[in-house]
Amino acid sequence: MTATTPPSAEAWMARALVLARRGLYTTDPNPRVGCVLVRDGRRVGEGWHERAGEPHAEVHALRDAGEAARGATAYVTLEPCSHHGRTGPCAEALVRAGVARVVVAMRDPNPRVAGRGIERLREAGIAVEVGLLEDQARALNPGFVSRMARGRPFVRLKMAMSLDGRTAMDSGESQWITGPRARCQVQRLRARASAVITGVDSVIFDNSRLTVRADQLELDDAEAIAARQPLRVVVDSRLRLPLAAACLSEPGRTLVATLEAADAERRARLEAAGAEVLALPAGADGRVDLAALLAHLAEREAVNEALLETGATLAGAMLDAGLVDEMQLFVAPTLLGGEARPLFALPGLERMAQQRPLEILDIRAVGRDWRITAIPGAAASPPSPVDGR
Amino acid sequence: MTATTPPSAEAWMARALVLARRGLYTTDPNPRVGCVLVRDGRRVGEGWHERAGEPHAEVHALRDAGEAARGATAYVTLEPCSHHGRTGPCAEALVRAGVARVVVAMRDPNPRVAGRGIERLREAGIAVEVGLLEDQARALNPGFVSRMARGRPFVRLKMAMSLDGRTAMDSGESQWITGPRARCQVQRLRARASAVITGVDSVIFDNSRLTVRADQLELDDAEAIAARQPLRVVVDSRLRLPLAAACLSEPGRTLVATLEAADAERRARLEAAGAEVLALPAGADGRVDLAALLAHLAEREAVNEALLETGATLAGAMLDAGLVDEMQLFVAPTLLGGEARPLFALPGLERMAQQRPLEILDIRAVGRDWRITAIPGAAASPPSPVDGR
Repeated sequence: MTATTPPSAEAWMARALVLARRGLYTTDPNPRVGCVLVRDGRRVGEGWHERAGEPHAEVHALRDAGEAARGATAYVTLEPCSHHGRTGPCAEALVRAGVARVVVAMRDPNPRVAGRGIERLREAGIAVEVGLLEDQARALNPGFVSRMARGRPFVRLKMAMSLDGRTAMDSGESQWITGPRARCQVQRLRARASAVITGVDSVIFDNSRLTVRADQLELDDAEAIAARQPLRVVVDSRLRLPLAAACLSEPGRTLVATLEAADAERRARLEAAGAEVLALPAGADGRVDLAALLAHLAEREAVNEALLETGATLAGAMLDAGLVDEMQLFVAPTLLGGEARPLFALPGLERMAQQRPLEILDIRAVGRDWRITAIPGAAASPPSPVDGR
Repeated sequence: MTATTPPSAEAWMARALVLARRGLYTTDPNPRVGCVLVRDGRRVGEGWHERAGEPHAEVHALRDAGEAARGATAYVTLEPCSHHGRTGPCAEALVRAGVARVVVAMRDPNPRVAGRGIERLREAGIAVEVGLLEDQARALNPGFVSRMARGRPFVRLKMAMSLDGRTAMDSGESQWITGPRARCQVQRLRARASAVITGVDSVIFDNSRLTVRADQLELDDAEAIAARQPLRVVVDSRLRLPLAAACLSEPGRTLVATLEAADAERRARLEAAGAEVLALPAGADGRVDLAALLAHLAEREAVNEALLETGATLAGAMLDAGLVDEMQLFVAPTLLGGEARPLFALPGLERMAQQRPLEILDIRAVGRDWRITAIPGAAASPPSPVDGR
């Protein structure tokens, strides 16, 4: 834009979204939120939520603006809160500061509280508009939205595969597939997640630590980010997790999800080794009920985004249960051959009519590898039949 | 470029390459060649080779220029021929027309004749420069270059796969993977090829016709292009090709490559059904020697580009023999699961150290599918080890 064209409402909200994104790795379990205060076409204050327990975006922006907030328009990426949490209601703070108008990108996704902050503002005579750049605002907090609206985390499945769709040798050997750029991106996916979910076989084969490592994030504030470790969740119906598993001695918590019928002695030994053990009902396949696990993680652990890093069996079971919201596939330029391990076990898939359609949203180069972002089940239209070959 | 900047030599050669490309589907078995004649900074004539038996690019350009060719510079994408073929030597025609200077993108790739055309021009006092946009000129004729320089065709492997690297159900069912845009591109790959190679199992499962269909090319001159059908080559060590196979009754020729020890009666019946049968020695695996097949196709059938459209076994064998020059993978946004058919059978690949590196040159959207262009074996550098997970 030129100096003579004042920034549009969209531009101010876009700025608020940029600010909100600064909390990508740190606000958990709170949402990422940004706020810009504008008066007479000029920005007079801005702020974002940095960390749970610290002030919300609106409070930072009001402090930044001081007296200039009076009569200003506030652009906020999420409906201001109306409840007395750790920091006092933001709607009230906006009223007290004399803000004249509030533009909100999206309502609070919690259906039990949605609209109350907006209501409070309107009661105080403040003009409120809702919905500007709403899609972008929702995309910034897929996990928080999912937890509030559906009572389960947003599940992002990450896999590293060869171009022929293989994740490891038949022996389990796997540690040389993708390159350092892809691994840095995986570290960032972990860092933004509230929890990392894996299957016990992955831990047994790889002895994965499942931690965020500051030195691999390649971010300025990497040390501060890695100070919060995502909850490690190991799906382990028969409590086969080795007591010496590396993940049990890392900073942060490890939750072992098993069956109610699991062996009590084994459970006690795992707890002594540092694990927390969660007993869940069995699903139809006799293994841990995955939907129950996700409900627990949302309700009891406030898990917004869960990163699923696992092998073909758990990945396939999550997919078949409709519990995968997004896939991040890192594709290495190599072939591992028809005997190597598959990406997904999808038992019972025997006819083309049963195939699992995806929608590919993005493919981009990541070092010498490629990253594919896809969502399940959303094929726009079925392919037309081959009318002869 | 603006009106005041005269086109550069590169721009004239680029124009010659564009002209050459017009012969992409029609010059077989000749190379695609273009020519531009420039005098006093202006184009005075241009032409391209259209079809074997018709004049070469230089002759078309000289006819187009008439008397204006005298003193002109000729930009030619391939060294002018010096031999008396079906149309007389082009080097001679350039000399006779009084051309002052010739810029050649690449020498004749046939080592036995390379340089003779250039020599003839220089003998006649014409200044000759060689190498302008040479890479682009070579890329236009990978098959002709391969046949002349290596005595075998350029082999392009085409496969259609799901995102998890599967080509078909375990049952063989496969006819719904990629969409109409991808199939159009496959038709064009067939149309530019001198031959289509497949394994007998692919013919048995799919009853593939392996033909170019004018109505699927989506090109203006589709009917003329489809008038030339690529040679169909079925690799069939044990002569299992059904006598009623659809490909045997299509326009064009079907060559069945089998072993010298193949059953004579079966051979006679296949010949009666319309096949030509080629007996070849066995390779180390007891099946048709694939290198011998390619040598035959280059030397006896003048095959420049061969399109390999087949299943995991033959694709893996060709790859392992180092006979695949390029891969075109069409990836459908779907999952077929771990029981479905693999992309490549690579027997003996059991350790990560044996993986087959690729270089991915390009990934692009093709309708709702994606097209990956890769070449085997050219990983720039091995991935660094994962230093902990």
